[in-house]
Amino acid sequence: MERLRKQIDFIIEIDKLKDIFRQSVLTGTRRNENDAEHSWHITIMAMLLKEHFIDPEVDLFKAMKMTIIHDLVEIYAGDTFCYDDDGHLDKEFRERESASRLFSILPEDQEREMWELWEEFESRSTSESKFAACLDRMQPLLLNSMTEGHTWKRPEVTKEKILERNSILKDHAPKMWEYINEVIEDSVAKGYILR
Amino acid sequence: MERLRKQIDFIIEIDKLKDIFRQSVLTGTRRNENDAEHSWHITIMAMLLKEHFIDPEVDLFKAMKMTIIHDLVEIYAGDTFCYDDDGHLDKEFRERESASRLFSILPEDQEREMWELWEEFESRSTSESKFAACLDRMQPLLLNSMTEGHTWKRPEVTKEKILERNSILKDHAPKMWEYINEVIEDSVAKGYILR
Repeated sequence: MERLRKQIDFIIEIDKLKDIFRQSVLTGTRRNENDAEHSWHITIMAMLLKEHFIDPEVDLFKAMKMTIIHDLVEIYAGDTFCYDDDGHLDKEFRERESASRLFSILPEDQEREMWELWEEFESRSTSESKFAACLDRMQPLLLNSMTEGHTWKRPEVTKEKILERNSILKDHAPKMWEYINEVIEDSVAKGYILR
Repeated sequence: MERLRKQIDFIIEIDKLKDIFRQSVLTGTRRNENDAEHSWHITIMAMLLKEHFIDPEVDLFKAMKMTIIHDLVEIYAGDTFCYDDDGHLDKEFRERESASRLFSILPEDQEREMWELWEEFESRSTSESKFAACLDRMQPLLLNSMTEGHTWKRPEVTKEKILERNSILKDHAPKMWEYINEVIEDSVAKGYILR
């Protein structure tokens, strides 16, 4: 029962992820998306888009565990906008502190599992973490293309930076990369990407 | 590329699940939770609570696919409050119509996969669908217990109905059932459950 209580404490604590808002807005009401919604979205994307990933042996089960937990560390560290260079200076430090505080609520074996999944996700060194990274890049791009380039209109964002941000797809999901390039060209033509 | 386009169309369409609001409210800001957040939450719960499910052979991978997609049909059918007897009269009809419209956006094989996962979830006839149902019941109970019984204060809700709603845990997750009974007794004592 002690073990279950720790698990429930964690489950209640992570409710906070629903109040960590991102830069992207929803296609319908145009309110900012939160991390729980984003994590849900890329987990379904994993199920649907696995076939486009370059490594046919990629373990979808593991990738889904990674996508569903990948943003938990933002509960105390907050969301860092991907084009915010200053925010990235201490991002790793803030997120490791947050992971340490959050994961330690769990029983030890599950604390370790969370660390392993999250560190692997961050490493982008395995097929599963590369696949997860592709989805994590593509999802906000889709939202931006459906909301007149909401996030792209900020002064620090350029076409070159968007391409660079999504470049992991070039080698690992070529069909998705082709699609992304179409979306970006189309978004430039429509004035969603300004520079 | 045609196949990828269908998949992306589906991925963009399901963004709408983030605007389908439930009766439960979040523990922090007390705004209503939406279906995408709820699905995210119970998918992490599946990872953490599998060990408490009666069948040690339950396939967590399949259960996670089920929890992540289980509410998609509410995109066009809307959320039906679990204690709304009238709403349940045509729930199945509305949800099947919605599934048909939504899943047909996908390539045929994935359309079929969605149907299979969702119908199995609804059937509660397999270990995975029973496990998913346990989580789907327990998550709003946890939110209610943390928000002074927000949903429980409606006139149609009684302790007996809450117990009945959660009774699937009795035989399939006895430790979780024990915990739930504690929460319910505690909530009665605190006046979160009125009758």
